[in-house]
Amino acid sequence: MKECVFSGMRPTGKLHLGHLAGALSNWLKLQDEFECYYCIVDWHALMSEYMNSSKIKDYCREILLDWLAVGLDPEKAVIFQQSHVSGHAELHLALSMIAPLGRLERNPIYKEQLENIADKDLQTYGFLGYPVLMAADILLYKATKVPVGEDQSIHLEIAKELARKFNSTFEEVFPEPEILLTPTPRVPGIDGRKMSKSYNNALFISEDLNEMWDKIRTMMTDPARMRRSDPGEPEKCPVWHLHKIFTQDEEKKRELAHGCRSAGIGCIDCKKVLMEWIRFKLEPIQKRRKYYEEHGLEMMDILREGAERASNVADKTIEEVKSAVGFIL
Amino acid sequence: MKECVFSGMRPTGKLHLGHLAGALSNWLKLQDEFECYYCIVDWHALMSEYMNSSKIKDYCREILLDWLAVGLDPEKAVIFQQSHVSGHAELHLALSMIAPLGRLERNPIYKEQLENIADKDLQTYGFLGYPVLMAADILLYKATKVPVGEDQSIHLEIAKELARKFNSTFEEVFPEPEILLTPTPRVPGIDGRKMSKSYNNALFISEDLNEMWDKIRTMMTDPARMRRSDPGEPEKCPVWHLHKIFTQDEEKKRELAHGCRSAGIGCIDCKKVLMEWIRFKLEPIQKRRKYYEEHGLEMMDILREGAERASNVADKTIEEVKSAVGFIL
Ligand code: SF4
Ligand code: SF4
Repeated sequence: MKECVFSGMRPTGKLHLGHLAGALSNWLKLQDEFECYYCIVDWHALMSEYMNSSKIKDYCREILLDWLAVGLDPEKAVIFQQSHVSGHAELHLALSMIAPLGRLERNPIYKEQLENIADKDLQTYGFLGYPVLMAADILLYKATKVPVGEDQSIHLEIAKELARKFNSTFEEVFPEPEILLTPTPRVPGIDGRKMSKSYNNALFISEDLNEMWDKIRTMMTDPARMRRSDPGEPEKCPVWHLHKIFTQDEEKKRELAHGCRSAGIGCIDCKKVLMEWIRFKLEPIQKRRKYYEEHGLEMMDILREGAERASNVADKTIEEVKSAVGFIL
Repeated sequence: MKECVFSGMRPTGKLHLGHLAGALSNWLKLQDEFECYYCIVDWHALMSEYMNSSKIKDYCREILLDWLAVGLDPEKAVIFQQSHVSGHAELHLALSMIAPLGRLERNPIYKEQLENIADKDLQTYGFLGYPVLMAADILLYKATKVPVGEDQSIHLEIAKELARKFNSTFEEVFPEPEILLTPTPRVPGIDGRKMSKSYNNALFISEDLNEMWDKIRTMMTDPARMRRSDPGEPEKCPVWHLHKIFTQDEEKKRELAHGCRSAGIGCIDCKKVLMEWIRFKLEPIQKRRKYYEEHGLEMMDILREGAERASNVADKTIEEVKSAVGFIL
């Protein structure tokens, strides 16, 4: 049997080139190798966004469009929405019963978010239980490989602990999931900081390419290159880090790096090359996205079919869980 | 449309005469008047009993047998098991997102139980969320009347608050449930304290009547009646409080009270009369119980059909909830 991969994204807006170069390009590889469950985790979005939930529906659509556009393939992976599979809520409830309260209260990610996020109401029962729901997401499919960022490793640790505690308290039902640490390149935004929607520095997968050029044209470069005649150092330039990801012509990159260091080329020339390669990458993606935008029913079918396939597996796990904890089936 | 009643019992063992004279006799009346949902709340049992969950299945059977035996009627009320209707878990998850953490942490019932119950692990995420799950149970059926004891009134208050917060944050989905405070007679156990399984002083609905007589024969009486010749005061005698509930012959009761006060009768005579009336009450109940014990498949059918009827209503509510919070349906 193929090993099973679970991963999810919260529907909180359009995806950007950071997602494309990071998680999504990993997911694309994984879908060829493993039995993959890619889940739009709308319950998780509601957790922090309940005051603002009217946008969740649009965000779910956007994220699905982005996924399909970049090439996530419903023929290969199970693509679905968390709330469409009731097992997530049921396993969440079951794991709640054994989840040690102190472990959740002391969770450093939780404490950090409570301290740093002021514009949302995070003082809810549900937000404290974030790792319990995430554990349910993963264990529901008995996923053994979970491609998440290092920042989520504590949550995955909690998922492992809950799997172990369930198995030892009731019956052996769950394999222990392992984090699949995948190389994620540094993807700077137009201000040089990490690309992030909340920094307002992102280039979006679905963005109009002329507008994207306007952003890239004025994008930050090596601060030492104030004038055309100043030599630069590519490694200090966010544009260069995008070249590393998108520009697939090694000869050309060597030429650009040399031109930068010798002040032989201007930054606009350098950025034009980058834009060409981003265009080369995004054009087919945006074409596919447009197709799905115009075929909304197909998207609904994909979600419905994904939910069915996910439910088939989830329902079996829930039966095992109920039998293990001792309910009449 | 008939008003809707929800009530549940945790499957933690056989029911006793306290349940019969209290909750169950109320439920019997209510099932004639309202649309009633009577729920074996197995998830709630798992909350405190997860270390000991192997008995839950038997307890579910016992409680169902007791319910059917006393006359709860699946033709009138919807009789079902909580874990059979996934909506309980889903609404629990939805309400989690808006349930204020501090309200749960400061819940006096919660604090008292944490302090007083030492032999169970209550330091779990799920146990903190007890009132959230109870709110979900009630609101899932849009119940407006909830017959619970005064001791549960804080939990019902929390359910009301969650209904209000849901309605104002998202859309008007839930009516506010009202507590239905029902008169519950004082039912003493054989040691004179409140009848309770945990005091080990209970007379069980399903108990062999000869064994019950042994218990009643040695049951505590008015401490002033040490000898046959001492006059007694019925109001100070636990036996008398059971007479008040079970002995349906007013003339006879006057005679007994007089005989007690004048030392005209002995306690054993008095207890024999009580036993006759308890027998009169329990014999048909135990006969019905025996019938169902021998017809296990019928019980399974009742649970399955109850779950179906409950799910029909629950699924509609969950659709409304998902639409209100803004998920793609
Ligand atoms: S030439 Fe290119 S790499 Fe060098 S500073 Fe300008 S944009 Fe950056
Ligand atoms: S005669 Fe009856 S009521 Fe009086 S003390 Fe004895 S048992 Fe109690």
